[in-house]
Amino acid sequence: MRKIGFPLIALNFKTYAQAFGENAVKLAKIAEEVSREYGVAVMVAPPVVDLARVVREVEIPVFSQHVDPYKPGSHTGSVLAEDVKAAGAVGSLVNHSEKRLKLADIGAVLERLRENGLMSLLCTDTVETTKAGAALGPDMIAIEPPELIGTGIPVSKAKPEVVSGAVEAVKKINAEVHVLCGAGISTGEDVAKAIELGAEGVLLASAYVKAKDPKKVLSEMAETALRR
Amino acid sequence: MRKIGFPLIALNFKTYAQAFGENAVKLAKIAEEVSREYGVAVMVAPPVVDLARVVREVEIPVFSQHVDPYKPGSHTGSVLAEDVKAAGAVGSLVNHSEKRLKLADIGAVLERLRENGLMSLLCTDTVETTKAGAALGPDMIAIEPPELIGTGIPVSKAKPEVVSGAVEAVKKINAEVHVLCGAGISTGEDVAKAIELGAEGVLLASAYVKAKDPKKVLSEMAETALRR
Amino acid sequence: MRKIGFPLIALNFKTYAQAFGENAVKLAKIAEEVSREYGVAVMVAPPVVDLARVVREVEIPVFSQHVDPYKPGSHTGSVLAEDVKAAGAVGSLVNHSEKRLKLADIGAVLERLRENGLMSLLCTDTVETTKAGAALGPDMIAIEPPELIGTGIPVSKAKPEVVSGAVEAVKKINAEVHVLCGAGISTGEDVAKAIELGAEGVLLASAYVKAKDPKKVLSEMAETALRR
Amino acid sequence: MRKIGFPLIALNFKTYAQAFGENAVKLAKIAEEVSREYGVAVMVAPPVVDLARVVREVEIPVFSQHVDPYKPGSHTGSVLAEDVKAAGAVGSLVNHSEKRLKLADIGAVLERLRENGLMSLLCTDTVETTKAGAALGPDMIAIEPPELIGTGIPVSKAKPEVVSGAVEAVKKINAEVHVLCGAGISTGEDVAKAIELGAEGVLLASAYVKAKDPKKVLSEMAETALRR
Repeated sequence: MRKIGFPLIALNFKTYAQAFGENAVKLAKIAEEVSREYGVAVMVAPPVVDLARVVREVEIPVFSQHVDPYKPGSHTGSVLAEDVKAAGAVGSLVNHSEKRLKLADIGAVLERLRENGLMSLLCTDTVETTKAGAALGPDMIAIEPPELIGTGIPVSKAKPEVVSGAVEAVKKINAEVHVLCGAGISTGEDVAKAIELGAEGVLLASAYVKAKDPKKVLSEMAETALRR
Repeated sequence: MRKIGFPLIALNFKTYAQAFGENAVKLAKIAEEVSREYGVAVMVAPPVVDLARVVREVEIPVFSQHVDPYKPGSHTGSVLAEDVKAAGAVGSLVNHSEKRLKLADIGAVLERLRENGLMSLLCTDTVETTKAGAALGPDMIAIEPPELIGTGIPVSKAKPEVVSGAVEAVKKINAEVHVLCGAGISTGEDVAKAIELGAEGVLLASAYVKAKDPKKVLSEMAETALRR
Repeated sequence: MRKIGFPLIALNFKTYAQAFGENAVKLAKIAEEVSREYGVAVMVAPPVVDLARVVREVEIPVFSQHVDPYKPGSHTGSVLAEDVKAAGAVGSLVNHSEKRLKLADIGAVLERLRENGLMSLLCTDTVETTKAGAALGPDMIAIEPPELIGTGIPVSKAKPEVVSGAVEAVKKINAEVHVLCGAGISTGEDVAKAIELGAEGVLLASAYVKAKDPKKVLSEMAETALRR
Repeated sequence: MRKIGFPLIALNFKTYAQAFGENAVKLAKIAEEVSREYGVAVMVAPPVVDLARVVREVEIPVFSQHVDPYKPGSHTGSVLAEDVKAAGAVGSLVNHSEKRLKLADIGAVLERLRENGLMSLLCTDTVETTKAGAALGPDMIAIEPPELIGTGIPVSKAKPEVVSGAVEAVKKINAEVHVLCGAGISTGEDVAKAIELGAEGVLLASAYVKAKDPKKVLSEMAETALRR
């Protein structure tokens, strides 16, 4: 069941205090429960140090938060596609706003992921860079205007034209790329709005990880995603 | 005469020992002479420290080698579009293989250049990143496989399909973007081959800057460019 | 008169909108006037693009805001010690908080400056990194807690122990390094306090560059520096 | 038994193809065996993705190859001290030549490690940066001239004065910092020479990880280390 389905709720655990070690496993298990109960695709991206541990404990797809553009070799401190795969993850976020990459390195990372049979979820910030991203052929793109990340103001509300514009632009360049909507997603309504604008899913972090009751938050989103 | 014409011979002085201060001016003046004699468009990109000095001494277009993505403010040590413009330059290289930028920053730099009425010459490395670059809408793109830079092996010979593939891909995404051919260009024949493959010009560095007789080298290129 | 004297008032123009092109020259000339009138050492660091132009117009010492760790060669877009010297500057800021460098690169930059007979003003943030900096043997160190930069709250007031601790620590490791006080310096009183705490000068930016009357601000500082 | 003893043989697995997943565990177990058989302190630094897995399987000290300077929060893709600790590691390499850090960030990383009760092994490249490193107060420093890394030419042979100079300089600035010798260590003789020059251990990578018989290589080193 490690394959990605759509609509997709992608959960980035970042490196929040609530997301290390045992807590990463706990948050992943809740995500798995909600995925099963509602039959909605949910993916989790725990901190890189916790990747293998989370993979062992859940059956939903697990992504790395980052992969470096290198082949195996002398790259002390780096995270390689080969190792992410050995840990059992099925893909990786690429170019998250907190881990921006050089254009040439994005090209290289996507190739490294492909070579290892891993999926890619590329993060971009504007309609222009989203188009550029689409040309690179990732499996998924999440558009997240950085000024909205963590604000609780969904891009789908603040800048609906960014989402619909991105979806249209991506499909024109590469119809096989799935577009997710990130930045500020915190309620089921936000999920519904994103899907309405043409997105095939959402990418969120704090609204889930920092929630008093993560299960409740995610269940509401899952329910709305289904109703679309 | 500061406008860019095509076919264009773009000369990157890099930070070669031969290209500082008075030498930057000397190399720019030779380029100007050849441009006049042959009626061929030639552009020069001296080191950033020498930008203003070169602009004062020649009438051919002068580009910066780099611009940072910032607006005026607290950015000690950076090169800003506003200052490049104040120096009289008409554009800037962007994302040269020796100064790679993050995708999001390339988007920002191109916007900063546009806001200041400056032209952009974006450097890319593969057909994929060239397509991505085209989606960002620069004025020109120079494709330079990094493994060929400085080798004297022209991409137009070693990998002709990269040049023709890039030209085709760029035009499909954005027909207004001019494509140059970089990496390994060192003779008039290389220039001819590049233009034959669909490029509208070339970007070169060492073959001109480090030549015993830069005028001779450039004249031969100019002659061939005209004959196309 | 390009040699550095102490107490020193070092003026970083950053890349403020007020500091490009002709404005850089204007601000440097005012600094020169005040230096002459009060007999106080004043140094200016204009944007790198304006370096040569400012050097031509004033006789006070001019510093670059940044130098890259490379020797002449294939380093498109970089600022090299050789070129800074060719422009007539006498030194460079190193590792400013807005242009932080890797430890290994700071070592290399200091060596490159020495090889070219240029002075170094290394910026650091804590007592610990100031000690580390002293061990690298720059000509001057300016300690600037980043959280105070641009606030108008002088480190000499907010954290006097940081200044006196830094002075003591530096002198213990390398008695020949001159210590300046940066971050939040905006009045003559701040200068006096810094010198009282053992600093041999100050490094400031916005208080001078953005002042309605830069000459008045600097004159007051110069007067106080003399009275110490 | 997770405490560090001296003389120490520190094994950096880098991201060699031989060092992922199960292989990381295998290499760590061999290190543990040799440590027990000879009573010599051996430490391993597996790829960050494999950290937790290796910790579970061996009782010798396990280090991370890298830690970012951040506190828990919005730092997608980063490796945090808190998570390294949660995984059971006892310390981290800092500023390896393949993961160079800014001076200010080294200061921050060392503080983050201390706050989490983790040890630090700082890597430096010259006598000057080693002195700077010592001023920052890490638990250990490994001096590795980058031009010798992976060459099989030990710094202790090629540049013995670098090792003895570094040891002396470090002890003068901070007598509590332990100095290791890195770069090019591949035989027991190299270990002996390093210790003779005043080092308290060695840091190596390829000679162990890529060895046909890692146990044999390490046993020979352990034997020599004891004989000192």
